[in-house]
Amino acid sequence: MAQDKKLVEQITSMDVDFAQWYTDVVKKAELMDYSSVKGCMIFRPYGYAIWENIQRELDARFKATGHENVYMPMFIPESLLQREKDHVEGFAPECAWVTIGGQNELSERLCVRPTSETLFCEHFKNIIHSYRDLPKLYNQWCSVVRWEKTTRPFLRTSEFLWQEGHTMHETAEEAKAETLRMLKVYEDFYFDALAIPAITGQKTDKEKFAGAEQTYTIEPMMHNGVALQGGTSHYFGDGFAKAFDITFTDRENKVSYPHQTSWGVSTRMIGAIIMCHGDDSGLILPPKIAPIQAVIIPIAQHKEGVLEKAAELRDRLAAKYRVKLDDSDQSTGWKFSQYEMKGVPVRIELGPRDIENNSCVLVSRVTREKKVVSLDSLESEVDAMLAQVHDELVARAKKNLAAKTHTATTLDEFIDVDKNQGGFIKAMWCGDVACEDKIKDITGGVKSRCIPFKEEKLSDVCVCCGKPAKHMVVWGRQY
Amino acid sequence: MAQDKKLVEQITSMDVDFAQWYTDVVKKAELMDYSSVKGCMIFRPYGYAIWENIQRELDARFKATGHENVYMPMFIPESLLQREKDHVEGFAPECAWVTIGGQNELSERLCVRPTSETLFCEHFKNIIHSYRDLPKLYNQWCSVVRWEKTTRPFLRTSEFLWQEGHTMHETAEEAKAETLRMLKVYEDFYFDALAIPAITGQKTDKEKFAGAEQTYTIEPMMHNGVALQGGTSHYFGDGFAKAFDITFTDRENKVSYPHQTSWGVSTRMIGAIIMCHGDDSGLILPPKIAPIQAVIIPIAQHKEGVLEKAAELRDRLAAKYRVKLDDSDQSTGWKFSQYEMKGVPVRIELGPRDIENNSCVLVSRVTREKKVVSLDSLESEVDAMLAQVHDELVARAKKNLAAKTHTATTLDEFIDVDKNQGGFIKAMWCGDVACEDKIKDITGGVKSRCIPFKEEKLSDVCVCCGKPAKHMVVWGRQY
Repeated sequence: MAQDKKLVEQITSMDVDFAQWYTDVVKKAELMDYSSVKGCMIFRPYGYAIWENIQRELDARFKATGHENVYMPMFIPESLLQREKDHVEGFAPECAWVTIGGQNELSERLCVRPTSETLFCEHFKNIIHSYRDLPKLYNQWCSVVRWEKTTRPFLRTSEFLWQEGHTMHETAEEAKAETLRMLKVYEDFYFDALAIPAITGQKTDKEKFAGAEQTYTIEPMMHNGVALQGGTSHYFGDGFAKAFDITFTDRENKVSYPHQTSWGVSTRMIGAIIMCHGDDSGLILPPKIAPIQAVIIPIAQHKEGVLEKAAELRDRLAAKYRVKLDDSDQSTGWKFSQYEMKGVPVRIELGPRDIENNSCVLVSRVTREKKVVSLDSLESEVDAMLAQVHDELVARAKKNLAAKTHTATTLDEFIDVDKNQGGFIKAMWCGDVACEDKIKDITGGVKSRCIPFKEEKLSDVCVCCGKPAKHMVVWGRQY
Repeated sequence: MAQDKKLVEQITSMDVDFAQWYTDVVKKAELMDYSSVKGCMIFRPYGYAIWENIQRELDARFKATGHENVYMPMFIPESLLQREKDHVEGFAPECAWVTIGGQNELSERLCVRPTSETLFCEHFKNIIHSYRDLPKLYNQWCSVVRWEKTTRPFLRTSEFLWQEGHTMHETAEEAKAETLRMLKVYEDFYFDALAIPAITGQKTDKEKFAGAEQTYTIEPMMHNGVALQGGTSHYFGDGFAKAFDITFTDRENKVSYPHQTSWGVSTRMIGAIIMCHGDDSGLILPPKIAPIQAVIIPIAQHKEGVLEKAAELRDRLAAKYRVKLDDSDQSTGWKFSQYEMKGVPVRIELGPRDIENNSCVLVSRVTREKKVVSLDSLESEVDAMLAQVHDELVARAKKNLAAKTHTATTLDEFIDVDKNQGGFIKAMWCGDVACEDKIKDITGGVKSRCIPFKEEKLSDVCVCCGKPAKHMVVWGRQY
């Protein structure tokens, strides 16, 4: 029992120091490790398994909406990156450059891809000639590199894993519809698979992607009220097509430029899961993406028949769930703490008395509720508790989002809310970037998250300058 | 029909120019495209889908043998790469180096990983302390970079996709068993999934991996008699462990070095599939990894009811197979050629008369055999034809391997066989690297493929120097 206590003591409470709590959890749940490569991280088996589950779920949704996977080179020649002006300005400052290959100085240096619009455009030029070649609905799973000064596991690292969708369309309308469709895929995925409700909307011009006409975003709120940009979907118009001279013969036999989108989510989603659902005992994983959905802990496992019955249960449940039996010689208390730390949604306790009664005990990781259930109806009881864990996580996250979203109609009120309550602030905005800059300066970091799809009219004037308001904006601090 | 003819004419016959045939097939089957990044290639949807199927099949086999996936950084600091002497000598000459990150010259340059032994070792040092931490059975799916002077799609590119397994064990025996076990996983995968029989065995010291004590290899033969190193499995002993100071407390409470393995296969397997099975009509894909296992071609599709019935068949078959219906307005002849080019194992033809008879026509891509089958037993007929395609591919590849494997007992005979017949040559060897060098020089490129697990005693003396022979070696030219 000394061991359990030690384990629990090692985690900083989230109310004491949220950042330290986060660091403790990612290390002690064995999600990641540091390496000697500055700013890069190692995905350990448990962390990578979460990513594999995310990939499988998302990939199925991409394929169901008609997308195909491809793989582009990881290098971008400097001249190719420079082809679209805004894009290169946005990304060049944070590129890693390969200058030597096979012991020779390269005649043109190569950037390790920070994103692949330019590579896709070069390829699209080769393969798009007629309206019959459209749409092209492509996606790529890969790692990208953006040289970051300060890094934090999963949230901001110099290398990260992601997917980037890149599509080309006959018309602006079709491309715009794709942009919104994929944001909706993200929104549904966050809700259904990650148990995370989030605000969705359009980025202001200041915050949009380098080279995009419009950027849409999904902005989940973390437990401490801070936002995390959870995924973005961009409409490019025909800007890149013109820069890369991509044309096609349209249905009227005229030469036209296709319209383009891109959209992406990354391993920072794992950071969102941790910070949205975790508690002082560690991680809590949504059942849909948990590497272990249920862990079986034998009680008094030295007693005759306990381990055999536990193994039998494991084999039975493995047909339907990702299940693990811990029959190691660690103490029961240590095991309880360990799988709470790892965020396993359901714990199954099985001891001699349970076996006698043809029952076992299910324990929810979220509510800690214990339920004695008959082994005859085990699957339906596990189903029910997994569903309950998911629903409970959604309900908690919704409650947190509502509790930490405030409104402000004057700048004083805005500053006061940010200082004393934090979280998201809904406030009207004139549409001028000067007001965004001023709010960021005054507050020391609050930025517009998005103009939400569901706008409210809180007043007629901008919270900052008092001029007529154009939009309601959700503001907040971010990771 | 002019269009079909054009399509067929565009492929060079494999007997006329095998290299050109290969290039034609990879382009026209839409497996890949070139990019402006020298030596790198684009995986188009059809090529990448083959890789996804390979990944899914192999990943399941790795997990079934107890391996877990992880992800390491893509960069290796120069000092880390230099830690194991033989390893850095083998890889440094072909590294790509990042020297600038975020607009600043790096204090230490970073190599883009050519392979990740060094990164795994650095991590193993952090996480291995006791025999209870062993074995560690890790695998990683990623892309790696080796700066190549001459490149060929799938076979040799500066960047390629692969998996690399890295494991650590308590004892040498256990690590050696793992090395052989994973080679067997590859051998079974080649046979069961890719329909490719191959020679397996041990590499000579000259040909082994940089830093390995032993390297085992799988060496399939291409249609033209040339070998392709299809996958390797390495036993490292405790060499890296010593270089990286990785120790653990063993069962006798003594500090020991763990024993290590690594093993990998890459996207060059796609090259093996093309060159082992393809013909003058294009690709032939083994059913297990074919992105489209059966294509439905409607005949006289303008006639009432044909497209409806074809769509109904597609929906029915989609429950069990990867199936496609081509209802485009291209000619039937064009469609036949197109899906032959793409190597789809089974073609299903469905016209008005078939519908009247409640039947359809199945056509095998390998034998071109046509079979009229009842729609009532469609699934069992498709199953049978897919199995037949697989078996037929195996039989052909076996026949080719046998026909193009020769023996030689004198150097003159060796040279004659190589010149006039090509293929693999079985010959005795004294164990001296000088004889390997001499054979390579005299023939202009024939190398030892491996000392096969199934050795034969062809004579008492080395084919090259006449001294007592130690082993039978399979020799051959390679991609």
